[in-house]
Amino acid sequence: MKLGRLNHVGVAVPDMDAAISFYRDTMGAEVITEPFDMPEQGVKVCFVDTPGLDGSWGTQVELLSPLSEESPVAGFLAKNPLGGQHHLCFEVPDIDTARSEFEAMDKRILGPTRIGAHGTPIFFVHPKDMNGILTEIMETPKAHG
Amino acid sequence: MKLGRLNHVGVAVPDMDAAISFYRDTMGAEVITEPFDMPEQGVKVCFVDTPGLDGSWGTQVELLSPLSEESPVAGFLAKNPLGGQHHLCFEVPDIDTARSEFEAMDKRILGPTRIGAHGTPIFFVHPKDMNGILTEIMETPKAHG
Repeated sequence: MKLGRLNHVGVAVPDMDAAISFYRDTMGAEVITEPFDMPEQGVKVCFVDTPGLDGSWGTQVELLSPLSEESPVAGFLAKNPLGGQHHLCFEVPDIDTARSEFEAMDKRILGPTRIGAHGTPIFFVHPKDMNGILTEIMETPKAHG
Repeated sequence: MKLGRLNHVGVAVPDMDAAISFYRDTMGAEVITEPFDMPEQGVKVCFVDTPGLDGSWGTQVELLSPLSEESPVAGFLAKNPLGGQHHLCFEVPDIDTARSEFEAMDKRILGPTRIGAHGTPIFFVHPKDMNGILTEIMETPKAHG
């Protein structure tokens, strides 16, 4: 595959409202989306925009908090109560081609390809096959979101 | 402060050569710098470029491997033998202003401001004061590096 844009860094947070205040007041983020639930992933999600070069879109910080104790993010927070970096998400032009390439490399893909928080198809690859990093592969969104 | 560009995601790796092969062959990165030593930080460093929007510079992945057992990255790898996400680095226009702002917010800054891998001044802020994320603040480089 050809490495695409780093769409976002996924960050687990124990308290979504406190995390939004942190990125707004401490870090000075100017564009933060309204949080929304993704029940099929067991998480509440919110995106913090960072500026790209020359004012273009930059890589986002995706804040994730668990909707229940069964959420994968709840397990992460049990080990990291303050929160921390959870995954990296890279864009690809075509999700099916990327999935076939990862399968051909014997990378363990976690579950089916599904629609992610940006409305385009995504899948996750196991951190043990990705240098210890849970990696999301996302088909490039048609618009910024 | 005003949130600047996400300059890079710092990633700890146990084997620099293997990590470079992974980003080149598995992930399809096309621009990877030669690794170089930063003895004062105790690390070997290498940058993987990811594309920004419309071909501009994107956020880099900074690969870090320890130069000795005393390196902070060695401690991280002892807990995460496969490697993993180590820190986030955000740009600011002026490092002294940013340092004063973080000090005024009672954030614990780790050591003096020093010259980082891109040749501009940087400092690190303690993860316990930053939602569990070790955070590097970097004065925006004059050129891509």
